[in-house]
Amino acid sequence: MSATKLAIVGVGKIVRDQHLPAIAANPDFDLVATASRHGTVEGVPSYGTIEALLESVPDVQAVSLCMPPQYRYTAAYAALNAGKHVFLEKPPGATLSEVQDLSRLADAKGVSLFASWHSRYAPAVEAAKSFLSSTKINSVHVIWKEDVRHWHPNQEWIWQAGGLGVFDPGINALSIITHILPRALFITKATLEFPENRDAPIAADIRFSDVTKMPVHAEFDWRQTGKQSWDIVAETEAGQMVLSEGGAKLSINGEQAMAAPEREYPALYERFAEIIKSGTSDVDLAPLMHVADAFLLGRHKFVDSFFD
Amino acid sequence: MSATKLAIVGVGKIVRDQHLPAIAANPDFDLVATASRHGTVEGVPSYGTIEALLESVPDVQAVSLCMPPQYRYTAAYAALNAGKHVFLEKPPGATLSEVQDLSRLADAKGVSLFASWHSRYAPAVEAAKSFLSSTKINSVHVIWKEDVRHWHPNQEWIWQAGGLGVFDPGINALSIITHILPRALFITKATLEFPENRDAPIAADIRFSDVTKMPVHAEFDWRQTGKQSWDIVAETEAGQMVLSEGGAKLSINGEQAMAAPEREYPALYERFAEIIKSGTSDVDLAPLMHVADAFLLGRHKFVDSFFD
Repeated sequence: MSATKLAIVGVGKIVRDQHLPAIAANPDFDLVATASRHGTVEGVPSYGTIEALLESVPDVQAVSLCMPPQYRYTAAYAALNAGKHVFLEKPPGATLSEVQDLSRLADAKGVSLFASWHSRYAPAVEAAKSFLSSTKINSVHVIWKEDVRHWHPNQEWIWQAGGLGVFDPGINALSIITHILPRALFITKATLEFPENRDAPIAADIRFSDVTKMPVHAEFDWRQTGKQSWDIVAETEAGQMVLSEGGAKLSINGEQAMAAPEREYPALYERFAEIIKSGTSDVDLAPLMHVADAFLLGRHKFVDSFFD
Repeated sequence: MSATKLAIVGVGKIVRDQHLPAIAANPDFDLVATASRHGTVEGVPSYGTIEALLESVPDVQAVSLCMPPQYRYTAAYAALNAGKHVFLEKPPGATLSEVQDLSRLADAKGVSLFASWHSRYAPAVEAAKSFLSSTKINSVHVIWKEDVRHWHPNQEWIWQAGGLGVFDPGINALSIITHILPRALFITKATLEFPENRDAPIAADIRFSDVTKMPVHAEFDWRQTGKQSWDIVAETEAGQMVLSEGGAKLSINGEQAMAAPEREYPALYERFAEIIKSGTSDVDLAPLMHVADAFLLGRHKFVDSFFD
């Protein structure tokens, strides 16, 4: 099978840092075009819009959409409707309804839609899932605390309504726990803290449960200076499991059980190639659904203004 | 086929006003028990909890859950898990995730789950859907404005986080437009107004679109005194369609096209009997998904405190 002709729409930091190296290293894909308002990739033809790209390069077979989520639906619809396979960066859209509609369209068109959750491909995630399935879990604590000034300097869109705020990193934690925990979770209580001058939360405290009343507590905070935390701690009958560094390291009862080099995006493109070959889609709305549920069910509290 | 033995959990105003008369008039159901913290139904055995009910009346075959949505999941899970068919009052739950989980459980148990949307059964809704499918729609305006002091006096739960606020009536409008409009909608912009002393919105202004960019504007407001409005106005190439009084009346170009007596709850129980007979479920999350999307994507604004 020859390489799939791929285009990227929305050339920004995540594309340069992650997508381009992963695509370059994957023989299943051949990057043939980009569309972006500002960014370009050296040596690859670039267009101003996805419509111009689809018209000018009709033999493109798949499209990775990496613009902010607020602008993703129209582009995804155009690509799917033109019969292209579509890779959606996370989160897959600004609303759940639009992603469901895209999912229906992909099925109707017989093309593959991939709602990607890169953190699910972190090195130690599968080992954590396997450990948790072998024991009884008493409680889970998710601590996702980072310094937004360091990780998202002057990214205005992330603070706009629909930009998700602290749930932009937090949804990575949600994509992991919805994958590794044995039963469906749902939120029972949440508090969201919005800076007075912003339309997206800077912190969130969320209580989940499941049918067995297993308590899951998640703390997301963007005001963390010093040590950054992307940890999931489970107290189990077989001891304490710590999945740390965003899924990169696993320790059980203080002993390192797994640590491997990070290769999330290479794994994502392997998965995309796999679903294209098998003629299926991979769209799990659960992480975004929990975010929407947190906004729906949570108390909304205003806190001090935030300035970059 | 003999009548299905039915129990009701959560005996409040909506049960007395709507469920009891509809059940009494429907030969497919036989009310055999109730569970409620306070309410009872004369001549029907009552229990304090659904667990006590299920234990004491093991031959109950179906359960209608009418308590506030925050308490619905646990009861629904217990009933489905015991092999009972379940009727959920609207909204079907406090979160989307829990309703999805219930839907999976109903399928696994081979019983029927009905996420009911009573406004879809308003008399003129089908006629409106039929008219809209015959023409091109240019725009839609939804005006759902009522006096909360009149309709929900001192209902504390409706103002709590998860209680939905003005979306409690607004979701009725959403259940209608998601049924009568020809294409999937998604929210592009929303503003939610929260009283400073409450955790649920008192008003919302929502802009939807669809793939054809058809504009849909919804205004929900609980501060309406005087004339109450539950209207959906569509400007179409065949003229103006007004679906008014919550779906009870339809007029086209000012001429009355349909008006029939209200019988939403009788129709809901006919539908419940139908899905039980056919061994299917009827769970459409779209209305609740739009509410969650509105909270997710919308600007949250604080307004004057509200006192009953």
